[in-house]
Amino acid sequence: MGFQFHLMKTEKETGARLGKIITAHGEFETPAFIPVGSQASIKSMTSDDLIEIGVEIISNNSYHLYLRPGHRIIEQLGGLHRFMNWNHPILTDSGGYQLFSLGQLREICTDGVMFQSHIDGSRHFISPEMAIEIQRSLGADIIMSLDECIPYPASYEYALRSTTLTTEWARQCKEALRGNGQALFGIVQGGMFEDLREKSARELREIGFDGYAIGGLSVGESPEVMYHIISHTSPLLPREKPRYLMGVGKPEDLIDAVKGGVDLFDCVIPTRNARNGMLFTSFGKLVIKNARYATDERPIEEWCGCYTCRHHSRAYLRHLYMAREILALRLNTIHNLYYYVHLIKGLREAIRQDRLVNFCKQWKKKRENKDDL
Amino acid sequence: MGFQFHLMKTEKETGARLGKIITAHGEFETPAFIPVGSQASIKSMTSDDLIEIGVEIISNNSYHLYLRPGHRIIEQLGGLHRFMNWNHPILTDSGGYQLFSLGQLREICTDGVMFQSHIDGSRHFISPEMAIEIQRSLGADIIMSLDECIPYPASYEYALRSTTLTTEWARQCKEALRGNGQALFGIVQGGMFEDLREKSARELREIGFDGYAIGGLSVGESPEVMYHIISHTSPLLPREKPRYLMGVGKPEDLIDAVKGGVDLFDCVIPTRNARNGMLFTSFGKLVIKNARYATDERPIEEWCGCYTCRHHSRAYLRHLYMAREILALRLNTIHNLYYYVHLIKGLREAIRQDRLVNFCKQWKKKRENKDDL
Repeated sequence: MGFQFHLMKTEKETGARLGKIITAHGEFETPAFIPVGSQASIKSMTSDDLIEIGVEIISNNSYHLYLRPGHRIIEQLGGLHRFMNWNHPILTDSGGYQLFSLGQLREICTDGVMFQSHIDGSRHFISPEMAIEIQRSLGADIIMSLDECIPYPASYEYALRSTTLTTEWARQCKEALRGNGQALFGIVQGGMFEDLREKSARELREIGFDGYAIGGLSVGESPEVMYHIISHTSPLLPREKPRYLMGVGKPEDLIDAVKGGVDLFDCVIPTRNARNGMLFTSFGKLVIKNARYATDERPIEEWCGCYTCRHHSRAYLRHLYMAREILALRLNTIHNLYYYVHLIKGLREAIRQDRLVNFCKQWKKKRENKDDL
Repeated sequence: MGFQFHLMKTEKETGARLGKIITAHGEFETPAFIPVGSQASIKSMTSDDLIEIGVEIISNNSYHLYLRPGHRIIEQLGGLHRFMNWNHPILTDSGGYQLFSLGQLREICTDGVMFQSHIDGSRHFISPEMAIEIQRSLGADIIMSLDECIPYPASYEYALRSTTLTTEWARQCKEALRGNGQALFGIVQGGMFEDLREKSARELREIGFDGYAIGGLSVGESPEVMYHIISHTSPLLPREKPRYLMGVGKPEDLIDAVKGGVDLFDCVIPTRNARNGMLFTSFGKLVIKNARYATDERPIEEWCGCYTCRHHSRAYLRHLYMAREILALRLNTIHNLYYYVHLIKGLREAIRQDRLVNFCKQWKKKRENKDDL
């Protein structure tokens, strides 16, 4: 069974969308949040942990897996789902973002990117065809076109040249696709320039993809600029295909983007912040190392249903963090992922019941009450 | 309900013992292995993980918890069981071993030990009374006398002086006990000198404890010397009280010590080795980073029932280890603890059925077959 997206509803007041994605490894509703598992592991989590949290789809990173353990090894072992024992939907990034953030001594040409591994300095060349071949070997349900992710700020000329290149690479990716049931998404680039976003979206629509991503955001621009580009770009994308905002973001960013008609998100924030002791709650950020939690018997959040909140006090979590215990990473990650997954589920219900604006108002109001922190 | 030990059986052929320990937080059979949770955490494990593995009792370390978060904080939070959400038996070490291995600038006198914290260099004084008071605050089911743990090799004179001091401290610990249901164990010292072990055991018996530990082993001596001291010391201890071999050891050490009449063990080997990628199997040690496992689809051990072996291949575990993923620490720890717990359970059944010698022969024979490694 191949990939399907069903748009079930668009909320009139906001334009927020409720949808369903069906893959060979199961289905899930959108909006959906995709935890990031760069190296075939959502850091510190087993598949059972993720299922218990309510995670429905995870991402993996082609750049990392190409370098280690190697996509051929994963293919030989039956693909990524089997390799990491996750029998649910997986999305793989093409590696574009990592090529430009981790790879060293890059040389970009129309054919692809020459780069040195951040692990051992070895030289590699990734073309659009190669990006598809790697992702075919890995076997994810949703795969991404190779794109150039430009820094911020970038000149109009550079952004224009790069957008043209990304379109060309997207075309080559589409042509390299073997039609094995994997859904291929194109990635809209164009920096912070409205007309380049329009050009990118138009050209990608002409090629035709199973879904469309908005890339190149959360790279240093202000939240206002980011939201402007999202709300400008989202309506340019085909109504009947899923829209995926890459690498974003904070809970408030997700809420704004859902209102702007975005369906999918991935971001390291919940997992990375968890490992740094920054916990999300409905009343704001809780920094677990604060001395005020040393004897605080309450869970992170009283009404949270996650494993961590059901079993452990802030005092214990603070102790684990201060003592640099490994368990701190895991318990904090469970809580933050649960927060994100359940925020998204709350947004779904609000869209279903035509009360998203009210949901968001209440959500923001709760945050102003810091008594429970 | 206070502490009880029931000796259910002594195997005639070997002297190995089958017993049962009853505490206010549950009961378990002996021989038993006690995983080490120095800082109120068996590294990377939740209580649910430990229960699923079959762990029945864990240890915690007074030295670590006194320094961080502080025993008063744990007492205020309802004691160690509640603090770490482990509602099963706990043993706390007095901190003697850590005072001598981690503490800096120690000054030992009859009254106790002055030392500097390994965390922040702050100065502290621990007396036998203080060691008991800390452990009373923590609230473990089994607590230990303060002892001096001498290095190896040590002169006869030093060992004699130290043994005398340990006896005096043990007496003070017994006197400081408030009779709140906690079981107090004395610790036999005496270095590698038979007559000092005899003196220590005799003097501790005269004071009278709920159990007796054999300390000061696995400090650099050969396995032969260690086993000699164990088999010499064990029969000196009262038949009707549990015998606890501290800080030992490898699977083969456990087997030998069980034959020598030992009932309890604690050791960091299964957990620490797991974090270093060294996995225990019935056919010997498996070093997961070896390249031969890169495409090995088998679990660590085919017939192992642990979570890791039921869900993950050697290839995936190797990848996690090479990629320094946090999940590697946890999955490896689950396997090694399961191995230890089930080795001990196997020993119990063998004693129950009067076939320990045969069990040990078969165990050693399996190890010679490296085909499955």
